[in-house]
Amino acid sequence: MYRVALVQFAPRLKDIDHNLERMQELGDRCNADLIVYPELCTTGYVFVSSDELYRVSESAADSLCISEMAEFCADKDCSVVFGFAERSADQVFNSSVLINPDGSIHIYRKIHLFSREKLLFSPGDQPFAVHAAKHGVRVGMMICFDWQYPEAMRTLALKGAQVICHPANLVLPWCQRAMTIRSLENRVFSITANRVGKEINGKFGETFTGKSQILNTRGEILQQMGETEEGFIIAEIDPILADDKTVTEYNNAFSDRRPQFYELG
Amino acid sequence: MYRVALVQFAPRLKDIDHNLERMQELGDRCNADLIVYPELCTTGYVFVSSDELYRVSESAADSLCISEMAEFCADKDCSVVFGFAERSADQVFNSSVLINPDGSIHIYRKIHLFSREKLLFSPGDQPFAVHAAKHGVRVGMMICFDWQYPEAMRTLALKGAQVICHPANLVLPWCQRAMTIRSLENRVFSITANRVGKEINGKFGETFTGKSQILNTRGEILQQMGETEEGFIIAEIDPILADDKTVTEYNNAFSDRRPQFYELG
Repeated sequence: MYRVALVQFAPRLKDIDHNLERMQELGDRCNADLIVYPELCTTGYVFVSSDELYRVSESAADSLCISEMAEFCADKDCSVVFGFAERSADQVFNSSVLINPDGSIHIYRKIHLFSREKLLFSPGDQPFAVHAAKHGVRVGMMICFDWQYPEAMRTLALKGAQVICHPANLVLPWCQRAMTIRSLENRVFSITANRVGKEINGKFGETFTGKSQILNTRGEILQQMGETEEGFIIAEIDPILADDKTVTEYNNAFSDRRPQFYELG
Repeated sequence: MYRVALVQFAPRLKDIDHNLERMQELGDRCNADLIVYPELCTTGYVFVSSDELYRVSESAADSLCISEMAEFCADKDCSVVFGFAERSADQVFNSSVLINPDGSIHIYRKIHLFSREKLLFSPGDQPFAVHAAKHGVRVGMMICFDWQYPEAMRTLALKGAQVICHPANLVLPWCQRAMTIRSLENRVFSITANRVGKEINGKFGETFTGKSQILNTRGEILQQMGETEEGFIIAEIDPILADDKTVTEYNNAFSDRRPQFYELG
């Protein structure tokens, strides 16, 4: 069995040191093979301006967060996924990173930006991709509002993802329920790591909805956190189950697709 | 406002006269602009063999069901959608038909066949399409198991459907909940007309799950029937609301799609 976990907490805005400490402290207690953290959990979420965001962004190549968490992954022999503000030349992406115990890293740049993120971040410019996590488990990353677009998880699942890692900073009421259908329609595990707490910055503020969840390939909730608590949850899963797309004796969630009739341009 | 209705009942296997009478009796009491009936509600569902099915199938051109219901539509000034076994040369399709008060008809042939339907019916061979119902309301049809494939409703919605008419004979537990997400992700109204009752034929049998529902463009349940009752429900909707794909001040369910990153072949 494969131990997957998520960490739900309230990052402090622009306090990377504190947030990294919290990520390691909670992650250490998970004792898991794969740990998923929330979106932008190293920096917090509510930025007033691009300048303010740019100052706390980090390029992947010399990111303190990535190097510290890579050390954590090597020490604890686990893979992690977390969200961070990724600087690339003069752009900032709302990204997530998969870091493996061997130090390999893979980055996903959020493709569907939400609300004021459009004023602050560049939209993702790279394809959805599937990567090997610890023990070769095939992981796909999506971030928060990507849930609204069924094409996101569908693309990852068709590319072979067994476990969808889904860092989030949710403020709308629908995602947790939508993800049960996303997991079901694609027959994959999903881990939505949402944050909690209220964050206020100048005239802007958001309250995040918690209820982070780990779902099985039928969209059933294996573990779920509360709306406001900080902590972690763990589930033991068999990732191989995600390779079985059987719906009935006669039906398969993938091979019964009929793309010649889908007009999705 | 536009009055939409659905009829939930237990068709009698191979008793077309009885079923047509029931459809008209219940439909008459709806006093609606658009009425949706279950899948295969003129013939019943559990067929043992292709021969048995073929004998009760009807070609659209000389279908008693279509001509009787066209008369009903003209009399009552309403559009209807219902499921029937459509004969075409030596093939039988699991089809639905939209009939308008002016006598115009449009047919959809189920694209994703469920379970033993694969042994009995030919899979749909025509594109998903959107048609005008009474007052020009733009209607898209899908049937039962099409719910499993997000591409089905997505295609109809992208083609401009405002109201999804969804005849069903449901036996799995997920559809009603999945449709709340389908309506939400596409910001369209949906009408799932499921049947009730148990049907046994030789060694085959199915129990159908009822809970037919009318959903708004946020996926909220406007009206829903019970698991076993026969009857109808009505909702007054403004179909124009389905043309508004706004999610937030900055987000739109359709224009924020990024098809260049969707790999759905």
